[in-house]
Amino acid sequence: MKKKVLFVVLNEYADWEGAYLATAINKGVMPGRESLYETKVVGPTLSEVHSLGGFRIMPDYSIDNIPEDYAALILIGGDQWKSKDAERVAPIVSDAIKQGKVVGGICAGASFMAAHGFLNNVNHTGNGVDNLKEWGGDNYTNEVGYMNSQAVSDNNIVTANGTGCLEFTRELLLLLKADTSEKINQFYDFQKNGFVR
Amino acid sequence: MKKKVLFVVLNEYADWEGAYLATAINKGVMPGRESLYETKVVGPTLSEVHSLGGFRIMPDYSIDNIPEDYAALILIGGDQWKSKDAERVAPIVSDAIKQGKVVGGICAGASFMAAHGFLNNVNHTGNGVDNLKEWGGDNYTNEVGYMNSQAVSDNNIVTANGTGCLEFTRELLLLLKADTSEKINQFYDFQKNGFVR
Repeated sequence: MKKKVLFVVLNEYADWEGAYLATAINKGVMPGRESLYETKVVGPTLSEVHSLGGFRIMPDYSIDNIPEDYAALILIGGDQWKSKDAERVAPIVSDAIKQGKVVGGICAGASFMAAHGFLNNVNHTGNGVDNLKEWGGDNYTNEVGYMNSQAVSDNNIVTANGTGCLEFTRELLLLLKADTSEKINQFYDFQKNGFVR
Repeated sequence: MKKKVLFVVLNEYADWEGAYLATAINKGVMPGRESLYETKVVGPTLSEVHSLGGFRIMPDYSIDNIPEDYAALILIGGDQWKSKDAERVAPIVSDAIKQGKVVGGICAGASFMAAHGFLNNVNHTGNGVDNLKEWGGDNYTNEVGYMNSQAVSDNNIVTANGTGCLEFTRELLLLLKADTSEKINQFYDFQKNGFVR
């Protein structure tokens, strides 16, 4: 049975931020490669969630009822990471980190992690250190751990800014050993630099 | 009232290929910019459609019942553009081209257009000229119009290969005058080259 990778999406989520990752997770890193994982979507409830791009998606699980057995928890950015729905995500992130599971946060997903103190013990990035300080206030004590990179992977936590979805994908695929590092880097290069150069 | 941009998705559609475009169309090209359009999703029926990445989305329209009034028709690539569902898309593409509407095809969406002769009168690109010849057979008579580019815009038809979603997005936003060309190029540069360079 394939291991589950949970994508947490709130309303107004950013369509592109999890798009490459979900495909590489669910279908294998390159065409014809084996997929060890399957994508599952976690929404505020089981009712439809709408993206910034106007797509309406059906969650597989609600925030309050996620499966116990999963390989990674991914927080996709968007415009509602300061909402009441977002607050309900904090306990599952806390549990995931305690259990040593892989956790990813991109864009406002990373800002949310800073706001809850989840980035205080790891090197990380996000939408700029000022953004994390603004979101985090006193809960964010690790300005020194902020790295000026598209994505950072440290101690099973991967963070990225909103334009770093391909780097976020690469770091998570490497951490999950979704394929060989050679294939993962080929995937990254192909999508980042294009078929026609 | 905003003009509709129709995204045609079949099962096994490629999550990333329409993701940047849908957001820029639906929410404006850059944060705070006005959006002149809205995204609508067209599926085989009104039942859920699943992406390669395992996301399940709800269409706004079915292929057989699209609105008469829309600004653009976008064919998102994926693994089912040789299916019976795909065949049902051909008449709406034909009508759109006759009416001079903007039509976009990326990856297998472009291959499908070649297969139906829709690229015979325009410069275009896709997943390689050999791919278009294989899909098109005798229906594809415009090998000379194939351009080795990430995306090509000609006479209201925009085509791209599967790694060219940002170039596809840029060309369509320019054609639709979704914002000034300066803002559209800023959007492209920001997403293509990243927040951290």
